[in-house]
Amino acid sequence: MTTEQNVRHFQDELEQLKARLLAMGGLAEDRVRTAMRGLTEGDQAALDRVITGDDAINQLHVEIDDRCVKLLALHQPMAIDLRAIVSAVKINNDLERVGDLAVNIAEAAARYMTHVPVKPLIDIPRMAVIAQEMLRDALDAYVRRDLSMAGNVLNRDDEVDALKTLVFKELLGYMQRDKTTVAASLDLILISRHLERIGDHATNVAEDVIFMVSARDVRHQVEESKF
Amino acid sequence: MTTEQNVRHFQDELEQLKARLLAMGGLAEDRVRTAMRGLTEGDQAALDRVITGDDAINQLHVEIDDRCVKLLALHQPMAIDLRAIVSAVKINNDLERVGDLAVNIAEAAARYMTHVPVKPLIDIPRMAVIAQEMLRDALDAYVRRDLSMAGNVLNRDDEVDALKTLVFKELLGYMQRDKTTVAASLDLILISRHLERIGDHATNVAEDVIFMVSARDVRHQVEESKF
Repeated sequence: MTTEQNVRHFQDELEQLKARLLAMGGLAEDRVRTAMRGLTEGDQAALDRVITGDDAINQLHVEIDDRCVKLLALHQPMAIDLRAIVSAVKINNDLERVGDLAVNIAEAAARYMTHVPVKPLIDIPRMAVIAQEMLRDALDAYVRRDLSMAGNVLNRDDEVDALKTLVFKELLGYMQRDKTTVAASLDLILISRHLERIGDHATNVAEDVIFMVSARDVRHQVEESKF
Repeated sequence: MTTEQNVRHFQDELEQLKARLLAMGGLAEDRVRTAMRGLTEGDQAALDRVITGDDAINQLHVEIDDRCVKLLALHQPMAIDLRAIVSAVKINNDLERVGDLAVNIAEAAARYMTHVPVKPLIDIPRMAVIAQEMLRDALDAYVRRDLSMAGNVLNRDDEVDALKTLVFKELLGYMQRDKTTVAASLDLILISRHLERIGDHATNVAEDVIFMVSARDVRHQVEESKF
């Protein structure tokens, strides 16, 4: 290949990597959505699908890691392209964890369904919506290399944390007043913790975008000596 | 530099990267140990130190990421060295999370200390010991590139999970029998979840070691086309 062909090939590969990361994000988000639907609609079949079916996301996780290593080995990218690939490795990990958390949510939801419901579910589905929006925005920020979009994701993490604290206090109150609500309340508390962690993973992705675009101190040190 | 000097320089840098990762692991483990001591000895000052003092680990996290990016940019490593650096990026992330989990443990322990204790703490400190051993062994496996050591870490994760289930059932029983134990029991359940996640991070590190040493399918594809 000529150098020009090689550069074009590399940029194509980088676009494919982005597309695969978005696909991974889509799978992870879909699993969270299905687990939450299982919880809110009492749909055991939906929960079972989340609990048993982690293969597609695991395969994609391995595929993306492999793509990153190959891109590094074959193209020896520099500067922002290099950081984009290193960030992809980290983001890939975060997305796999989100998939695992969907399983944790589905497991707790399946237990919750065996108890008398303690309260109408409002704040917990709200947490799920925000956490999923954060995740989607963080991935969009990665694809567009958009710093301000990444910054917005960081700001929203406080909303999720505030809802988690609200849910915790409310459910602790139920448990302390009426011990027959203990097991069910506990499952909801655990679900809210899992959702909080999904928000944390979205935050990690946003931080990776900031690292990728602004390069912090790395840029100066590497670029001064190398470029 | 001559090629030989360059290779030696690269190997020196790789050794330094390993040393910094071990230092990061040491900091993370120390924080978990301090949080657990705070819990078992009712030592509020120890808990406060964990809750406030995350700077060293955050700085090292940034430093290690920067080292990885620089090594990739300046030396364009191949095969196992390349995978070792990609793995270092992931392991670095896992270790930072362990540091965050130590904060979560300390926060729950500080709340726990405001309640009447529900039970003598035996299983939870045991979980902490196993999780920390797993983490240490996983890092040793990384430094030594030792597949069987990494495999042993994976096997131990079941011990941690079994203890978590035991703790959960026991504390759920307390809460259901006596509602005055609810708040304290809940904190212990959350602490056991945080310890379980430290075990999960050790498992991730061990999986990264297996990826690095055995290279799965990456090795064949990259090495056949490139070497």
